[in-house]
Amino acid sequence: MSQRAAQVLEAVDAVAGYTTYIDLIRPLIQGKQIVSTAMKKEIDRVSAALDLALAGTSCAVVSSGDPGVYAMAGLVLEMCRERSIAIGGTDNPDNGDQLCIEIVPGIPALCSGASLLGAPLTHDFAAISLSDLLTPWETIEARLEAAASADFVIVIYNPKSRRRADHLTRAQQIIMAHRDPSTPVGIVTGAMRENQRISLTTLEQLHQAEVDMQTTVFVGNSNTFCYDGYMVTPRGYSKKYNINK
Amino acid sequence: MSQRAAQVLEAVDAVAGYTTYIDLIRPLIQGKQIVSTAMKKEIDRVSAALDLALAGTSCAVVSSGDPGVYAMAGLVLEMCRERSIAIGGTDNPDNGDQLCIEIVPGIPALCSGASLLGAPLTHDFAAISLSDLLTPWETIEARLEAAASADFVIVIYNPKSRRRADHLTRAQQIIMAHRDPSTPVGIVTGAMRENQRISLTTLEQLHQAEVDMQTTVFVGNSNTFCYDGYMVTPRGYSKKYNINK
Repeated sequence: MSQRAAQVLEAVDAVAGYTTYIDLIRPLIQGKQIVSTAMKKEIDRVSAALDLALAGTSCAVVSSGDPGVYAMAGLVLEMCRERSIAIGGTDNPDNGDQLCIEIVPGIPALCSGASLLGAPLTHDFAAISLSDLLTPWETIEARLEAAASADFVIVIYNPKSRRRADHLTRAQQIIMAHRDPSTPVGIVTGAMRENQRISLTTLEQLHQAEVDMQTTVFVGNSNTFCYDGYMVTPRGYSKKYNINK
Repeated sequence: MSQRAAQVLEAVDAVAGYTTYIDLIRPLIQGKQIVSTAMKKEIDRVSAALDLALAGTSCAVVSSGDPGVYAMAGLVLEMCRERSIAIGGTDNPDNGDQLCIEIVPGIPALCSGASLLGAPLTHDFAAISLSDLLTPWETIEARLEAAASADFVIVIYNPKSRRRADHLTRAQQIIMAHRDPSTPVGIVTGAMRENQRISLTTLEQLHQAEVDMQTTVFVGNSNTFCYDGYMVTPRGYSKKYNINK
């Protein structure tokens, strides 16, 4: 957790979040009002947080990783617009007509996961969620196709959904039409948590990988290699310079 | 800086980094050996760090943001391979035959910048560097084209190079062939530093934006909107649910 995140948690009156995340920070939020709801109740949670804040009870909405990457920051702002709540930043906290909003950045799963694998993201990459709860599957397929064809490293969020088991296999097929079957693939589940699992495989073996809802999948580009158990996408120094000096 | 990054800086004997970054952390590294070099001397710096570590002087290689996103982690691992240095993780630090490597994740510019703009990255996005020092310009154009056509939010790193001024204008042209000229664009320079500058513009005005080598540009997707000065890419809740409850 960043220093700023710790400061904000210390300062607020209330904390809203999915139960699992609340449990991870419970020692830090003793005595504060807790708005804890189950997964998929995001709208209720944000709605309650906004109601509290509008009534003068400052409230932190917590999520894992970075709040701006497939997480809660967007929904908070979306709901402010829907409810026509005037908002402003922390640079002008005394403006009584505006709800003061601060988004505290964090380390996203794509960075924590990458650091455990080595350095798969040292070149251009695309982040794609396979969840079709809020996005048409055709859009997801088109993005996989575009990212694969232009040789982006591909970071896959939500590789497994509760409703369908074949999303990752379909993604594998789309990517393999453009990329060598031996392309390195890194799989990280529960990065930096007690259940952390890391494995390296290849694109052609990806359908056999064990993934769940806490898993992030990293598919290398055409230059990605493995060395001593690390997955590395080179920036291109060795082509340009005599690196071996 | 994360707690782990602070712990590692405390523990090491030496620190290697671009002078600007060394200056930012100088109070934390009093008394340690410093390997400080100018920009574009990355290979010399990593080479010196590896020499120190192989001789038994533990050394941290520092960069800004996250070390795995367009930064130094990849080069460290690349050079280990080029020099055939056996490496291993911190889970087995007593293996004398291996150089022990730890990559400490951080908050990348794409997250710190996004948090200052609002929530532009709440849906699928592509990160593309416009630097053609180590990447052919044709590859960069192909990636811009692919990302634009599949409606990715696009995060542009290195929008301005010392050698060429027209990269960003060319990127604008490519993206505008697929996306509305009024698409919101957020521009963040020096996120979280003293020289921090934030502005919102549109895709059709992007060529007039003031950018430098510390700037990150965020081009919205077809659903991105601005509200009260915040840039937001919705996840799609408002289409799926009655968000206004």
